[in-house]
Amino acid sequence: MVQGPPADSSGSRFTPLVVLELASDTNQDAIAWLLSRIRDQQQDGGAELLVEQLGPGVDAQEKENPNVFLVGATWQRLLSGAEDVGLFKEFNDGSMRGFTCANKHDFKDYQGDGDSFLSMAECQYIIKHLLDTLRAKQETHVPGHSEVKLYPGKSIVRRLQSKGILVQVFPLHEKEELKRLSFSWYGKVKLSLQPLDDIRHYYGEGQALYFCFLEYFTFALVPMALIGVPYYLFDWEDYDKYVIFAAFNLVWCTVILELWKRCSASLAYRWGTLSRKKAFEEPRPGFHGVLGFNPVTGREEPLYPHAKRLLRIYLVSLPFVLLCLYLSLYVMMIYFQMEGWALSVHDQEPSFWTGVLLFIPSIIYAVVIEVMNLIYRYAAEFLTEWENHRLESSYQNHLVLKVLVFNFFNCFASLFYIAFVMQDMVLLRQSLATLLITSQILNQFMEAFLPYWLQRRRNKKMMRKVQKRRTLEDKELPLAEQVRLEADMSTYLGTFDDYLELFLLFGYVSLFSCVYPLAAVLVVLNNITEVYSDAFKMCRVFKRPFSDPAANIGVWQLAFEAMSVIAVVTNCSLIGMSPQVKAYFPDSESQLILWTVAIEHVLLAFKFILSFLIPDVPKPIQISLARLEFESLEALKKKLVVNVADRS
Amino acid sequence: MVQGPPADSSGSRFTPLVVLELASDTNQDAIAWLLSRIRDQQQDGGAELLVEQLGPGVDAQEKENPNVFLVGATWQRLLSGAEDVGLFKEFNDGSMRGFTCANKHDFKDYQGDGDSFLSMAECQYIIKHLLDTLRAKQETHVPGHSEVKLYPGKSIVRRLQSKGILVQVFPLHEKEELKRLSFSWYGKVKLSLQPLDDIRHYYGEGQALYFCFLEYFTFALVPMALIGVPYYLFDWEDYDKYVIFAAFNLVWCTVILELWKRCSASLAYRWGTLSRKKAFEEPRPGFHGVLGFNPVTGREEPLYPHAKRLLRIYLVSLPFVLLCLYLSLYVMMIYFQMEGWALSVHDQEPSFWTGVLLFIPSIIYAVVIEVMNLIYRYAAEFLTEWENHRLESSYQNHLVLKVLVFNFFNCFASLFYIAFVMQDMVLLRQSLATLLITSQILNQFMEAFLPYWLQRRRNKKMMRKVQKRRTLEDKELPLAEQVRLEADMSTYLGTFDDYLELFLLFGYVSLFSCVYPLAAVLVVLNNITEVYSDAFKMCRVFKRPFSDPAANIGVWQLAFEAMSVIAVVTNCSLIGMSPQVKAYFPDSESQLILWTVAIEHVLLAFKFILSFLIPDVPKPIQISLARLEFESLEALKKKLVVNVADRS
Repeated sequence: MVQGPPADSSGSRFTPLVVLELASDTNQDAIAWLLSRIRDQQQDGGAELLVEQLGPGVDAQEKENPNVFLVGATWQRLLSGAEDVGLFKEFNDGSMRGFTCANKHDFKDYQGDGDSFLSMAECQYIIKHLLDTLRAKQETHVPGHSEVKLYPGKSIVRRLQSKGILVQVFPLHEKEELKRLSFSWYGKVKLSLQPLDDIRHYYGEGQALYFCFLEYFTFALVPMALIGVPYYLFDWEDYDKYVIFAAFNLVWCTVILELWKRCSASLAYRWGTLSRKKAFEEPRPGFHGVLGFNPVTGREEPLYPHAKRLLRIYLVSLPFVLLCLYLSLYVMMIYFQMEGWALSVHDQEPSFWTGVLLFIPSIIYAVVIEVMNLIYRYAAEFLTEWENHRLESSYQNHLVLKVLVFNFFNCFASLFYIAFVMQDMVLLRQSLATLLITSQILNQFMEAFLPYWLQRRRNKKMMRKVQKRRTLEDKELPLAEQVRLEADMSTYLGTFDDYLELFLLFGYVSLFSCVYPLAAVLVVLNNITEVYSDAFKMCRVFKRPFSDPAANIGVWQLAFEAMSVIAVVTNCSLIGMSPQVKAYFPDSESQLILWTVAIEHVLLAFKFILSFLIPDVPKPIQISLARLEFESLEALKKKLVVNVADRS
Repeated sequence: MVQGPPADSSGSRFTPLVVLELASDTNQDAIAWLLSRIRDQQQDGGAELLVEQLGPGVDAQEKENPNVFLVGATWQRLLSGAEDVGLFKEFNDGSMRGFTCANKHDFKDYQGDGDSFLSMAECQYIIKHLLDTLRAKQETHVPGHSEVKLYPGKSIVRRLQSKGILVQVFPLHEKEELKRLSFSWYGKVKLSLQPLDDIRHYYGEGQALYFCFLEYFTFALVPMALIGVPYYLFDWEDYDKYVIFAAFNLVWCTVILELWKRCSASLAYRWGTLSRKKAFEEPRPGFHGVLGFNPVTGREEPLYPHAKRLLRIYLVSLPFVLLCLYLSLYVMMIYFQMEGWALSVHDQEPSFWTGVLLFIPSIIYAVVIEVMNLIYRYAAEFLTEWENHRLESSYQNHLVLKVLVFNFFNCFASLFYIAFVMQDMVLLRQSLATLLITSQILNQFMEAFLPYWLQRRRNKKMMRKVQKRRTLEDKELPLAEQVRLEADMSTYLGTFDDYLELFLLFGYVSLFSCVYPLAAVLVVLNNITEVYSDAFKMCRVFKRPFSDPAANIGVWQLAFEAMSVIAVVTNCSLIGMSPQVKAYFPDSESQLILWTVAIEHVLLAFKFILSFLIPDVPKPIQISLARLEFESLEALKKKLVVNVADRS
């Protein structure tokens, strides 16, 4: 077994960046083999990283896992890794270019072996990439674990992870920087914007884009909120005014979604992820199949027929989703029946208890919705796993689609029913307000305060334990304790739930905006607290996530756009159903409907034309990208000319 | 003045490929300078091509232009040019790769200096590219033409062209191959498919894609035509059946358009244009502006502010188009008034002359429509030219959009009026049939037979002239006469009009298919003759066009998809208006309308989902493309590793 020096002196040559936790019953041969593979030189097929075992904690005699390892790297290795992953950094001329060691001195912030060139998040991302691409050589199985087979060229870390030997890999927090970041982010009540560049610096582009979207979305809703306030204050029940509000809303939704694309392109360009080419995607850890040769790489890897996956999707997943939607509809109908029954009981003999009874159906329904969402989420994950997608991105897309459709249906079905079947606008407004407010409060509680409270308890326990053993002058935990503490923190599962929440909020604002103009105000207020609670949760509750070099918000852009299309349909119908508009067509209901449909079609056409007219990438960035491409083409030509000259 | 040897011996080292015709009053210094620039070595900034003057014709004393030059190239120059333009050829392993001289022996059909490797169309395309990229050096103006200024790095040929010194550049036909191609294409009445690969070989990918689309479109309509025939034969006026037909139609239109994308991707992959990267696009010849530095290339070129162009588009072009649409509407209303008046005259005192009078309004209207289309076309070209687009592609897109909208409106407005305002289905069917049949006959006549007849007269005149001077044993014309004959042929202006015709036909089939199922039959019949007349026109009427390495049908795909969306709306409304469907909702018209709208929305949603579900590129080609990309990434990595090793 390899024993490194105790790694808690931060001034030493070794800065721990990433933690590897192996199962406590891992064979010592396997550990030694893994460590040597990580330490081996690149030409011997190793990752050429530094790795040390974490020293025992203060209560080592307890059931503590000894197999925790800290991974770091030399500066040289990080630079060559940055080139491998295709990191984009700012060049001397202000443009973003793929980093290469050969012309490292031409990059802006590069100073000798300067520390400020790569952020810690970038270093951790590079180490993760190097660990992930550490491939088996001639080994047929992991030493000491003959049940874990290895195949030449396959990722070792992924194999160990899917077999449960490698429990987790996570990057370490950076106490000082985190403190600084959290102070400037949510430490003080302020009117300034979020420190997006710092967030990106600490958490990577994917996180920063989410927070930027949250901020953008909040600001974009402010005009709607401002227009909505007088409707509430002066109690305008006048549908003429609602028509104006709804029309403004629909155009506004389209415009903000289009402008967001430009905004995200600008950010992604500044952060160097826009033109970054993705390396060939490896299969996700859970993917299985008959061993064969990948037609693209020619490497040996599990293959799974596409037709079989399609069959699973269309014959099992799709019917299952439809069944769940039907079930959700069924539950909703029961809710309305219960509500009707409670109302009739209350009407017959009104008393305090029947008054309470009136609330019972809504409460039960709200709880049932949450439970159904939760169960469905597990089912969707199981099904998508079972569909056996080769790529993580394709897995994510299918999961998002499934969860999105169900959540949309589950949350909005009752509102649609009230609006279009019962046609009760007063009830619609009430339900909308209740749903919006309760779901927001529940969410904030479940998402941030509950985990924080749990984490706080754990922190205190750890502190007490430490203080029992030694007397601490400084309040800082020793590294060993800090690592073990972070290892126990909850894992941040990505931006999925955060985006989903925003998506549903966007639905509340846009779908029925013409009956409840105050929705935008509530959502703006919610978003402001959301920024704080999300920031807090990122800094204090969760393990640090690996950064994710995202260039846009991906499938969510599509989801928001689909919502804005549905919003056109619902708002037009709601306005068409309003008594004031009906009064314009006293004689003929069909005339009214025809006009409504015509206006709806015009609005939809206008939306599509608008999305064509507004370029997705701002002009200056288009030019920068074109210049980079032009230069690489020119360089290629020159290279060719040189080659020809060499030959002749 | 430079005098080449007479170039009519086809066995000599010099194969003429492209013809340059300079204005007859061009200064001799200018000619000598241009020829030397074309002949100069590459390292001296020349194009390194072969160029010879065309010998005098048999009636040289007449007003014949002596400044006609034949351009050819050595085999070596063509190969290096193929690399410059990024030509994709079939590799040994069957994949398509960018040709490079360095590994020319690894390409499939390359045999030493083999003639069969590059097709004549490819050679001509390469020569055109080399001529276009011949750039001015230190010359400030064209020798002998001080009014034609030159700027370092600007294309000489484009400058000469825009100043009228260079009258035309066109590639020569290849008599033997053309004879063979035209025989296999339209020479015999046959049931087999068009020789697409031969067409691509002779005319290039853009042309071949058009003919492939024409063929695909015809076959795609056959099921609709087959279903449509019984409706006509058995005189089914039953709307139940029409509903089925229309529903089938709508789904079918979506499916064929989606499948076409896959089909065109397969072809473009096979022809090597799919993954071909476009070189940086130079400004179009007509583009003007203040001289400045292009922000992308850093080269000196005219600049024109984008905002100014946008102002011209939105403040002039857009209002103009709207005005034209209004005018077209106005003319249509006059037509209906005239028709009503003619009908009333006929009803009052029916006689032979009033019977004739009944046809007069339609005839006048048909002629007016054609005249308006023609005038509008010129106006659109003028306006788009005036908008001063930098790129040819952007110019084309704006022109297509303008012409498309107006033609759509002009051709279909009267049908829409009859269908939705007059609600006269019998008249709609009649008008549809009349419009469809007459426009087809007119088109075929204007497009192929008239130009052919003119060309034939010219050919005969030339033949007579030649035979007057010499006694010809063989019927072949000497090269000099042949070149002059081709120079006089009409210029093929691209596939624009051909696609526009198909677009309008698609409109007739899809928009009102549920009232006139026979439309598909007529369009299929038309398309079959269209294949022959278009083929004939390409082979016999027009100058050979330069090949255009297109990877898809571009903006037309979008146009056809937009048409199929509009078709959903019109067909749903037509069915909703039918008396049989109305009979299902005897009590409430609004119920009927709501159902119609609901079904329409479902169909539209289904269309969009379908277009998401069907991948645009077939799986095997996706894999091939991914493999190429993967290999280039791997090669890059290896190169980097070598570089690092070199340095250390």
